[in-house]
Amino acid sequence: MPELRKDPVTGRWVIISTDRQKRPNDFRFERANTIGREQCPFCPGHEQMTPHEVMAYRENGTAPNAPGWDIRVVPNKFPALQVEGSFDRHGEGMFDRMNGIGAHEVIIETPNHDRTLAMMADTEIERVLSAYRERILDLKQDRRLKHILVFKNHGAAAGATLEHTHSQLIALPIVPDFVREEIDGAQRHFEVKERCVFCDIVHQDLADHRRVILENADVVALAPYAPRFAFETWLLPKRHGARFEEAPRHEYEALARILKQLLLRMDRALEHPAYNLIVHTSPFVGDTTDVYHWHVEILPKLTRVAGFEWGTGFYINPTSPEEAAQVLRNVRLS
Amino acid sequence: MPELRKDPVTGRWVIISTDRQKRPNDFRFERANTIGREQCPFCPGHEQMTPHEVMAYRENGTAPNAPGWDIRVVPNKFPALQVEGSFDRHGEGMFDRMNGIGAHEVIIETPNHDRTLAMMADTEIERVLSAYRERILDLKQDRRLKHILVFKNHGAAAGATLEHTHSQLIALPIVPDFVREEIDGAQRHFEVKERCVFCDIVHQDLADHRRVILENADVVALAPYAPRFAFETWLLPKRHGARFEEAPRHEYEALARILKQLLLRMDRALEHPAYNLIVHTSPFVGDTTDVYHWHVEILPKLTRVAGFEWGTGFYINPTSPEEAAQVLRNVRLS
Repeated sequence: MPELRKDPVTGRWVIISTDRQKRPNDFRFERANTIGREQCPFCPGHEQMTPHEVMAYRENGTAPNAPGWDIRVVPNKFPALQVEGSFDRHGEGMFDRMNGIGAHEVIIETPNHDRTLAMMADTEIERVLSAYRERILDLKQDRRLKHILVFKNHGAAAGATLEHTHSQLIALPIVPDFVREEIDGAQRHFEVKERCVFCDIVHQDLADHRRVILENADVVALAPYAPRFAFETWLLPKRHGARFEEAPRHEYEALARILKQLLLRMDRALEHPAYNLIVHTSPFVGDTTDVYHWHVEILPKLTRVAGFEWGTGFYINPTSPEEAAQVLRNVRLS
Repeated sequence: MPELRKDPVTGRWVIISTDRQKRPNDFRFERANTIGREQCPFCPGHEQMTPHEVMAYRENGTAPNAPGWDIRVVPNKFPALQVEGSFDRHGEGMFDRMNGIGAHEVIIETPNHDRTLAMMADTEIERVLSAYRERILDLKQDRRLKHILVFKNHGAAAGATLEHTHSQLIALPIVPDFVREEIDGAQRHFEVKERCVFCDIVHQDLADHRRVILENADVVALAPYAPRFAFETWLLPKRHGARFEEAPRHEYEALARILKQLLLRMDRALEHPAYNLIVHTSPFVGDTTDVYHWHVEILPKLTRVAGFEWGTGFYINPTSPEEAAQVLRNVRLS
């Protein structure tokens, strides 16, 4: 059973998930990540290589765990958290722990082994976003869960262990402290201004325009003012909304269009970078309706993160957001 | 001039250091890091390849910036911060920035290109720690500086760009928020218990022993209860002390002995892992004397950090600290 442990100094929760060592590596560095198509557990015809699907968008008349799907969601074979069991919260002297209750799922975005998110049609990307939404709405009914992280690792340098394009979802019984910090910061701003800090950022940057990469009627892609990573990009709905899963359909459409454009431009300008995509949305606890603003962060992995960034949480970025925005704006996609 | 920018949501300061792009890479992924001995700027005889030294331990009668040194400290050739200039703090609408005033230095730990910290004698390692101390005491006199980060990247996977063993030091005009969080956490514990949280950890773990890797009279090496990384290790002085630079000499001796033992054991058990070493010590502002406890963290880089760890600050660790401590305790060095 995985365990959640709390650092007694910072209060940071960490998952200790020793079951994951059943993966084909022990303590050593890289995981095997050149699993070819023949062995790919995410390709059609290989449905038996994954745990049973929890959801799929599939052709009428096709059976679960068989080909015929467009998107397929399955539990992670090496889950960092488990759905069954009780918390068994207790102390070990001064330390605090609980069982690692939660969910860890994989969203297989397409049956096509060679397609990337950037190559998909807008409508296909929108369908991926809808799958995120549907899983969040379903898992949210489990009152034990307090937050859901939806993310995607693209490329080995970003931590992807299988090349077939997929996203992941981790549903947690705690609110991670990086989420808490963001909410607390937004709360502080709201207390002073009675406005959402993200709405203020969108408002100022749309007027200023130096950090705007792309926009359409509903969504804007910005290089944030204080980016941790070169070419870090935030995709924000222009309309205030605290929860990704409650966004209206036209915002998913708009987000899909901007996301595709952005990824194509990054592929062109940065030679197909590895990246992490992270959905930032409200936890299920606390009233964040006026305070928080859901968005998507894209973190390209262009340089190795060095000493004080790793482990310390302090960042040095060699590229200004104004320059990054200009580079991405000027890409010709012909 | 590098810039310090504050994220308006979280309050996190980030260095935007575009000068670093004068490095031999532009936006792209890896930096060249196979600079051989012939081109190594840290080897004796190549002193002219670095900026002028700010300190050296050298043979009597040898000239600065010439061979004859055991340890040499030089400004980083591609500094993330600059010593000269004024802060010029101002807002850009809702955003906050200031000039990147500070220091960024390199501590070349030995003239020998092929030696690693693990291969050095205890006394040589102690001398490296003394060099850290001396630079902190010197830079601390600059009242503009509020915190100094001393760290070491060993191996390309940990962000090292030159193989000749060296540490780095970044002196900052702000207290980074990860330091602030640690201090705040220790403060919370102190308010409730009137005891140092690190002293409590040392006390409990020395009694329990499952997470103790090594100890001597003055220093203990622990696998922390909630480690972010597999084989993460904290080296703590047993006696309470808030500031690394004020530790008595026998604690440096003890730390050097434990550090060498630990690195040798990691080299053996984990096949010469890349790692980051980070000195955690009090900022120069605020009274942390009773509350904080200096220590050294070693973060081996065994697995790629995946999506939600990157960028999100949430960690999944596949190895329990009890298991890691046992593996390292049981290494036979004979």
